[in-house]
Amino acid sequence: MAANSFGTIFRITTFGESHGKAIGVVIDGCPAGLELCDDEINEALAKRAPGKSPLTSPRKEPDVGEIISGVFEGKTTGAPICFIIPNRDYDSSKYEATKDLYKPGHANFTYLEKYAVFDYRGGGRASARETAARVAAGAVAKKILAHYGVTIEAHLQQDENLIAEVQKEGDSIGGLVEFIATGVPVGLGDPVYEKLEANLAHAMLSLPASKGFELGSGFRAASMRGSEHNDAFVERDGKVVTATNHAGGTLAGIATGMPLIGRVAFKPASSIKKPIPTLSLDKEPATFSLPEGSRHDPCVAIRAVPVVEAMVALVLVDALLMNRCCRL
Amino acid sequence: MAANSFGTIFRITTFGESHGKAIGVVIDGCPAGLELCDDEINEALAKRAPGKSPLTSPRKEPDVGEIISGVFEGKTTGAPICFIIPNRDYDSSKYEATKDLYKPGHANFTYLEKYAVFDYRGGGRASARETAARVAAGAVAKKILAHYGVTIEAHLQQDENLIAEVQKEGDSIGGLVEFIATGVPVGLGDPVYEKLEANLAHAMLSLPASKGFELGSGFRAASMRGSEHNDAFVERDGKVVTATNHAGGTLAGIATGMPLIGRVAFKPASSIKKPIPTLSLDKEPATFSLPEGSRHDPCVAIRAVPVVEAMVALVLVDALLMNRCCRL
Amino acid sequence: MAANSFGTIFRITTFGESHGKAIGVVIDGCPAGLELCDDEINEALAKRAPGKSPLTSPRKEPDVGEIISGVFEGKTTGAPICFIIPNRDYDSSKYEATKDLYKPGHANFTYLEKYAVFDYRGGGRASARETAARVAAGAVAKKILAHYGVTIEAHLQQDENLIAEVQKEGDSIGGLVEFIATGVPVGLGDPVYEKLEANLAHAMLSLPASKGFELGSGFRAASMRGSEHNDAFVERDGKVVTATNHAGGTLAGIATGMPLIGRVAFKPASSIKKPIPTLSLDKEPATFSLPEGSRHDPCVAIRAVPVVEAMVALVLVDALLMNRCCRL
Amino acid sequence: MAANSFGTIFRITTFGESHGKAIGVVIDGCPAGLELCDDEINEALAKRAPGKSPLTSPRKEPDVGEIISGVFEGKTTGAPICFIIPNRDYDSSKYEATKDLYKPGHANFTYLEKYAVFDYRGGGRASARETAARVAAGAVAKKILAHYGVTIEAHLQQDENLIAEVQKEGDSIGGLVEFIATGVPVGLGDPVYEKLEANLAHAMLSLPASKGFELGSGFRAASMRGSEHNDAFVERDGKVVTATNHAGGTLAGIATGMPLIGRVAFKPASSIKKPIPTLSLDKEPATFSLPEGSRHDPCVAIRAVPVVEAMVALVLVDALLMNRCCRL
Repeated sequence: MAANSFGTIFRITTFGESHGKAIGVVIDGCPAGLELCDDEINEALAKRAPGKSPLTSPRKEPDVGEIISGVFEGKTTGAPICFIIPNRDYDSSKYEATKDLYKPGHANFTYLEKYAVFDYRGGGRASARETAARVAAGAVAKKILAHYGVTIEAHLQQDENLIAEVQKEGDSIGGLVEFIATGVPVGLGDPVYEKLEANLAHAMLSLPASKGFELGSGFRAASMRGSEHNDAFVERDGKVVTATNHAGGTLAGIATGMPLIGRVAFKPASSIKKPIPTLSLDKEPATFSLPEGSRHDPCVAIRAVPVVEAMVALVLVDALLMNRCCRL
Repeated sequence: MAANSFGTIFRITTFGESHGKAIGVVIDGCPAGLELCDDEINEALAKRAPGKSPLTSPRKEPDVGEIISGVFEGKTTGAPICFIIPNRDYDSSKYEATKDLYKPGHANFTYLEKYAVFDYRGGGRASARETAARVAAGAVAKKILAHYGVTIEAHLQQDENLIAEVQKEGDSIGGLVEFIATGVPVGLGDPVYEKLEANLAHAMLSLPASKGFELGSGFRAASMRGSEHNDAFVERDGKVVTATNHAGGTLAGIATGMPLIGRVAFKPASSIKKPIPTLSLDKEPATFSLPEGSRHDPCVAIRAVPVVEAMVALVLVDALLMNRCCRL
Repeated sequence: MAANSFGTIFRITTFGESHGKAIGVVIDGCPAGLELCDDEINEALAKRAPGKSPLTSPRKEPDVGEIISGVFEGKTTGAPICFIIPNRDYDSSKYEATKDLYKPGHANFTYLEKYAVFDYRGGGRASARETAARVAAGAVAKKILAHYGVTIEAHLQQDENLIAEVQKEGDSIGGLVEFIATGVPVGLGDPVYEKLEANLAHAMLSLPASKGFELGSGFRAASMRGSEHNDAFVERDGKVVTATNHAGGTLAGIATGMPLIGRVAFKPASSIKKPIPTLSLDKEPATFSLPEGSRHDPCVAIRAVPVVEAMVALVLVDALLMNRCCRL
Repeated sequence: MAANSFGTIFRITTFGESHGKAIGVVIDGCPAGLELCDDEINEALAKRAPGKSPLTSPRKEPDVGEIISGVFEGKTTGAPICFIIPNRDYDSSKYEATKDLYKPGHANFTYLEKYAVFDYRGGGRASARETAARVAAGAVAKKILAHYGVTIEAHLQQDENLIAEVQKEGDSIGGLVEFIATGVPVGLGDPVYEKLEANLAHAMLSLPASKGFELGSGFRAASMRGSEHNDAFVERDGKVVTATNHAGGTLAGIATGMPLIGRVAFKPASSIKKPIPTLSLDKEPATFSLPEGSRHDPCVAIRAVPVVEAMVALVLVDALLMNRCCRL
């Protein structure tokens, strides 16, 4: 299953824990001949970095990484690209206080049940920190896609005043992230189990805190009529397009060439200042609240925006390469 | 990418087109020692068969298949199980009339763009008929899961009077299918890219006509507060459980032991009696409507119910086997 | 691991036991647009069929199969191609007599230890009969390769008079099969773990009765000097080629464009008329010899020739498709 | 294809070039609960390190790496283990002189043809240096296997006086490495395409400079008779074993419990002091010989010994985990 890998041709493998030495990613299957340097990836990371807005947790790490392999004289060689980001905000002492509690909405209960070991410092592999590695890989994917005219953009759908209010209360709130990819070549995506939306759904539900995914009309489609939902085919500039885009950019899992549009639902962060009843590891009733001095994310969906973009890019670049094999 | 395969340890590969000779599935990785016979699979198929309700299309096929391999003296041997269902409702002449049209909401535009060939008879591989093969495999998965105390149940969330009304109008309507799995052992699911919900999302968005997936609180979570969403840990009968289940049965992608609950949104069927503007393959304006005598599904979500159950079973049985490898 | 699948882009999955209802193969990832019909595959099967020479076992089956899916109007559609060969020479009564013995050199001991079940009729999945499914898939692979100018030929290296002599003695003998592929485009094969020779070795050692694989100079290389082994680069017709071909057609796992040459060693068939000491399933001393009336293969390597060709084709077609993704 | 990964459940991905910043490996799927520290891996690396014998090239690197992730409080957590070895012997200036030549027996011709880019410094990914990452992963695999009573040992079969002689001549010589694994549990390995010997063959032919693989009787089997080759089953200490072991430890691809014995043939190193005719990149006749001051390996098989052990360990640990899924 290779639980830490994603993709088939353009395949990433991420590693590293929140408060370990470093996190990183190995990209296998990146085509040779792409110009690439550290700065481009670090710029993408900067957009994701926490501490950039008063509404995100103030971890101060600069998140600067470096390419360890796979690039020679400024170009990718076809060899695996390893990119490593050292962890700097190392202090895990604040996790000591709560390490013997099952934290509601958090990974430690299930990880302990599964593995009998859990790296409690900052959530280990289950931490949102792992997503920095995805963003790094996504930056490479985006660059390839740009070469083929594909652009990807995501944005938050949540009231930012409400977020500020929630933050003051020591609480958190969920959020919706919408993405739009344009210029996606007709034909990307494979039938049946490798439908574009199947891989996008997989990608999005692999993100920490995500609870749902929809494409195009999404959940609204469940109450729509066929006569309303069907996108009529029309000709525009000699090309076959659809007059509307309820489909959201695919038909039967394969890109139509129309904008690829979807949404991801994120739950509110589990770690809040308000106390929540729970149990200790030895099953005694207890109360969990975010330890003093801990970072507090009132809306994790804010930081999810560049990560959603990265995941769209990873799905599309893989489909783009795979599509080269579909005809004789 | 093996577009027609799903799963890692318990891996299915489906084949066959809607109006070809047969459809079928190869199940690789089924553990040895499971009692299995044709009848058990055929019973599962009977539940899915069209023509059972006045609200589903009246294809009259009995959908009776047989096990070709992998079972010896009534038990699985560890060898691949091939199950084949001959196609009987063979008449594809009614597709002739519309084969030169791009059908709105349908596979032929994207398939033709991708492959330059399309088996237009009934939608080929993109047909919902492919899901019979999933149901067959799901029946085997369910039997293994039952052995371990896991049960799966799905149901439609749509007003059936409304469906009848829509049917009379020659239109179609979408629908929501909710599933619940109980008895899921704590610890199933793998971290990061193989989260249980990631694989469920992948499974569900690989279904024809599906537009969205959510787990537990799902899209509602996007507007909930952490203080409301967090599921408190409590002790019940000596076991650690959660008092509520907004999570929907997983934490960080791994089963909590609480019921696994999710929903899948299906769009209204594209093929309706009402005419829709479209183009011919040579880009001339045209109109598409369901040919006289064609089957008409007013709500495809009805028939999706057993298929959703099958996909949950396939995801869970794979996670169950994979989970045997997580500790020394 | 998907033990019954081989390949990544062009991926086959085989199923069926020696004396079950049928054997078959699903080919996933065959490019669309290839002309293909039953006859072409059946011709390839005819070359492999037993009973063609006095030196192979006289199973009389015609080995005629049919394409069940994936071909429409004489061309592949990109959908999975299922090809099924019914088993006709059904009589498995002769296996009854020896079913309670561990057969030396045979699968039943290890299969029983692993699965606690074994389909003893003719060796089940471990039977050489499974290779008919490989030959069917190989025929499709060869046709694609021919389109790109690649040809594959294999031949036996064993004294046929010796085989006849061994046959008279009721004994068996091993053999060597050499293959040569010409026209292989420079660049096929991937580095490190997907070297062309690594995949060829995998393919060949997955064959029943194979004990070794070598490429080019092979085992002889172990005693050669670098000054002798190095293939000098020279120009011929404007192309860079090597003056000799000790490498056997690859450098660092990637095709050089020179003929791809290798050899596979096959052991003598385990089932012979001479008695061999063994144990019964309840560990009592016993003797095994081929039951009266059983087929006797004096040299299984004879029938391995077309199977080796098929495996070379499967490896090369996968590499050919994969190679389309190596550059931007 | 993920050309830089190996294994299914216990899956490694290696990265890094000979003269880049570092080489490393990510191990995904290592069971939780294994005690592990840097020293254990570094000890394994020390055995492989060049410069230890007068007969291996005197690269002076200490080859000391560190665990970056996946270990917490001295135990594996189930998270991916990344191990990184910085490159220290950085001087790649000596490769400048020959960078415009096609080097006989070397990777640059095929890599340039495939990717149009080649990291010529020390052979990039095609360098034997990549095998250090395999040895690191193999050390982890061996430790798991030791827990289950499996031991692995390999040794060189070549005359060391001859090697010294060849070294004086500025030439190189091939060699044979034999491995023996004892304590392999009966039942490891999967049928058909995942036979133990198929995965071993894949593993061995993925090594730089390897030209052949054989199991048990190997190529000798091609001239043996069945009556001689068959290993009779006998009882020993209440267990079913074979009196001889021509099979080399498997039957039908599954471990018998007898010692697993095989051999790998390595070619002589391509880089020698004797001049070899070749072409420049612009196809002008030229001569290649090892640049002054370059390391010279008279017999690469010497250093292959611990690498062969590592590959056996990787194949076996994957089979060991996979085997947990074969029965209900």
